[in-house]
Amino acid sequence: MAAVLLRRMSLARLHRQVSFILEVDKLKEVFRQTLNTQSRRQENDAEHSWHLCLAVIVLAEHANAPHLDVLRVLKMLILHDLVEIDAGDTFAYDVARVAGQHDREVLAADRIFGLLPADQAGEFRALWDEFEARATPEARFAAAIDRFQPMLLNCHTEGASWRRHGVTQDRVLARNAHVAEGAHAVWEYVVAMVQKAVDDGHLAPASPSA
Amino acid sequence: MAAVLLRRMSLARLHRQVSFILEVDKLKEVFRQTLNTQSRRQENDAEHSWHLCLAVIVLAEHANAPHLDVLRVLKMLILHDLVEIDAGDTFAYDVARVAGQHDREVLAADRIFGLLPADQAGEFRALWDEFEARATPEARFAAAIDRFQPMLLNCHTEGASWRRHGVTQDRVLARNAHVAEGAHAVWEYVVAMVQKAVDDGHLAPASPSA
Ligand SMILES: [Ca+2]
Repeated sequence: MAAVLLRRMSLARLHRQVSFILEVDKLKEVFRQTLNTQSRRQENDAEHSWHLCLAVIVLAEHANAPHLDVLRVLKMLILHDLVEIDAGDTFAYDVARVAGQHDREVLAADRIFGLLPADQAGEFRALWDEFEARATPEARFAAAIDRFQPMLLNCHTEGASWRRHGVTQDRVLARNAHVAEGAHAVWEYVVAMVQKAVDDGHLAPASPSA
Repeated sequence: MAAVLLRRMSLARLHRQVSFILEVDKLKEVFRQTLNTQSRRQENDAEHSWHLCLAVIVLAEHANAPHLDVLRVLKMLILHDLVEIDAGDTFAYDVARVAGQHDREVLAADRIFGLLPADQAGEFRALWDEFEARATPEARFAAAIDRFQPMLLNCHTEGASWRRHGVTQDRVLARNAHVAEGAHAVWEYVVAMVQKAVDDGHLAPASPSA
């Protein structure tokens, strides 16, 4: 009798987990400002998240922290954009939308992580909070990679999303400077890469008023 | 002098790693037979790989192995489809193409992982070989999730890719039975889910000759 009850509880738990996996299929329809290098279509959040995970396992050795918990970095990046299913993508240089972004995303986190069994909802929400706060070495490295990857794609699509929105080199460097908090080597690489984009005429050096 | 040389070697290594990250952007353009549940467009390998990673961190507790190295499972799934950049996607039920699949993919693995510094090329190739061999608990669980996810999408797109290719329930169950080697609970769930697809008229029970 207890065995039957346990089995039923376990099946209910699995069913809830699968419903979550199905719900987040929506991440594949949240489109970003960045273009993919091949087809030049807009990147979606799901493929972006995969690309970050791949970059993490390639670049983990360059993290400032000597003993990084790579599993926690990956979990953060797998989950970090789920809130955009409800809150939408916020372009990093859109000052007006960046202002309300966190409030929108907290509501989204409540709903989306709340689909899971309570223990997992709590674990995933804590990972998302950790990512947002950038106070641990893992969160800092995850955030560094989350900034590095769109700049990499921009530099290999002739600065498409920068040009489209009139973003300039000074703003790119100011907005992404915290890459250095996660990985000095990656930040040095970015500074050189962004300079090359300017030299190649794909990014304006600065707005006249700056 | 030695410091300058070390710095140059380290920069060359990072440059090689970034070239790899850029090359695999192509995974976003490899399209699968499965449809995404929302837009009903074909899923690409990059977003598929992300969806698997997400399913792993949600479902890891259901793995048959009591102490799973989840980081290794995630690494395998982040990398498992990169060979399709050169070899293309092979539909699981396409008997003719499945025959030559491994040879095509080995060539692709040589080229793609070979873009990395030798130590990482070796590590990533070993992970891909491990995934393909399905001989460790981690590879078995990774493979189980890789089979579970397309069936889940199929069941929530009215069996679109099964119907399109005339695949029947007996073939679905035979082709995917090794899910049970990775996670008995997930396989039980799959069997019930696939039966529901039959009951709902989205999957034919069996071909007359079977
Ligand atoms: Ca992001």
